[in-house]
Amino acid sequence: MDKVRIIEVKQSVFENNDKKADALRNKLKEEKTFLLNLMSSPGAGKTTTLGQVIDRLKDKTRIGVMEADIDGDVDAVAIAEKGVKSIQLHTGGMCHLDAAMTEQGLNELGTADVDFAILENVGNLVCPAEFDTGAVKNIMILSVPEGHDKPLKYPLIFTVCDALIINKMDVIDFFDFDMDKVKEYAYMRNPNLKIFPICAKTGEGVDAVCDWLLNQVNEWNK
Amino acid sequence: MDKVRIIEVKQSVFENNDKKADALRNKLKEEKTFLLNLMSSPGAGKTTTLGQVIDRLKDKTRIGVMEADIDGDVDAVAIAEKGVKSIQLHTGGMCHLDAAMTEQGLNELGTADVDFAILENVGNLVCPAEFDTGAVKNIMILSVPEGHDKPLKYPLIFTVCDALIINKMDVIDFFDFDMDKVKEYAYMRNPNLKIFPICAKTGEGVDAVCDWLLNQVNEWNK
Repeated sequence: MDKVRIIEVKQSVFENNDKKADALRNKLKEEKTFLLNLMSSPGAGKTTTLGQVIDRLKDKTRIGVMEADIDGDVDAVAIAEKGVKSIQLHTGGMCHLDAAMTEQGLNELGTADVDFAILENVGNLVCPAEFDTGAVKNIMILSVPEGHDKPLKYPLIFTVCDALIINKMDVIDFFDFDMDKVKEYAYMRNPNLKIFPICAKTGEGVDAVCDWLLNQVNEWNK
Repeated sequence: MDKVRIIEVKQSVFENNDKKADALRNKLKEEKTFLLNLMSSPGAGKTTTLGQVIDRLKDKTRIGVMEADIDGDVDAVAIAEKGVKSIQLHTGGMCHLDAAMTEQGLNELGTADVDFAILENVGNLVCPAEFDTGAVKNIMILSVPEGHDKPLKYPLIFTVCDALIINKMDVIDFFDFDMDKVKEYAYMRNPNLKIFPICAKTGEGVDAVCDWLLNQVNEWNK
């Protein structure tokens, strides 16, 4: 297959990021494009989850994906193989995306034929949470092997997210992962958080995520 | 048990970090204290691995541990229970430690009675790799559930580390993790990398890590 398109996005340090993010959201509202910002640790299963979501939603809404990484294009290739528009963003070593970088990505992706744009952020629980990308909703994945104590150590990302996907539920018996505790700690950070336990490998639980997502997309674009 | 001591460390943005790191290393050399910088993604098993290392080495060398986190003190408490000197560093939201922050931590820990100081960095594969902490050696943990493609996506951390611990080997059968591929990709980034497959939960493979570490400590402090 053709190699995917790789875009080098650059940070504009002098911008007021929050203002830029609000402006981007307003533009997306006018264009009727919903933008989701997907965050997690490295290897928590962002791309696999995204693949399952795309399989279920690509005939119901027009999807476009931006894969952000320090280096490489393995994720963008995997998503392109799912049959949706996909580009790879390289952050030039940056550990997160800000609103200006996200806008550069959206301009390259093209949003005229996209109802549901997805930004797969750099794998990192710290920095991406600090920068509003202009997304309409933020969602994070915590995988079972990472442990249930993560909301205690990385409070901000749980606070800024609208939904928490708990992935790799198929291996929960092999890890000391306490589902009640992770919920208790996560709700401490954000009482309104939606929590979805899934297994991205098998697809179990992904339908509920897709129902929630499609509802958000349609609500924003109506 | 008593709560552990929590130190708020502050970044000094105007410092030249590389210069500061070299000065700290020189000071540690004079004081005969070896400093290890331990890095990984969130939940890869830094604290569990450290516990196993402490069990094996605490009667052979005087250990002191600095646990860096955005928030919380669960790790410092766990380490203190192992019977070694331990403090918790809070980074004020920062995603990494620089040399000045590390020095503040070392001053609070006290190095006069410590041969082997360990900094458990913030769980993050991106930012900690960019800042020389002044450590004598850098070591990282990649856990099997994170996947073998990580050296492709997070090149710098594999480049700056002297050793790579591959943790959670006990669950390798449940994940699509290719040991040959991870070695190939990691050696692409750093041909001199020492690679140690372990299971921190059971202690399997940890002896080899300890042999290597003790050798480094004794070499530096002689």
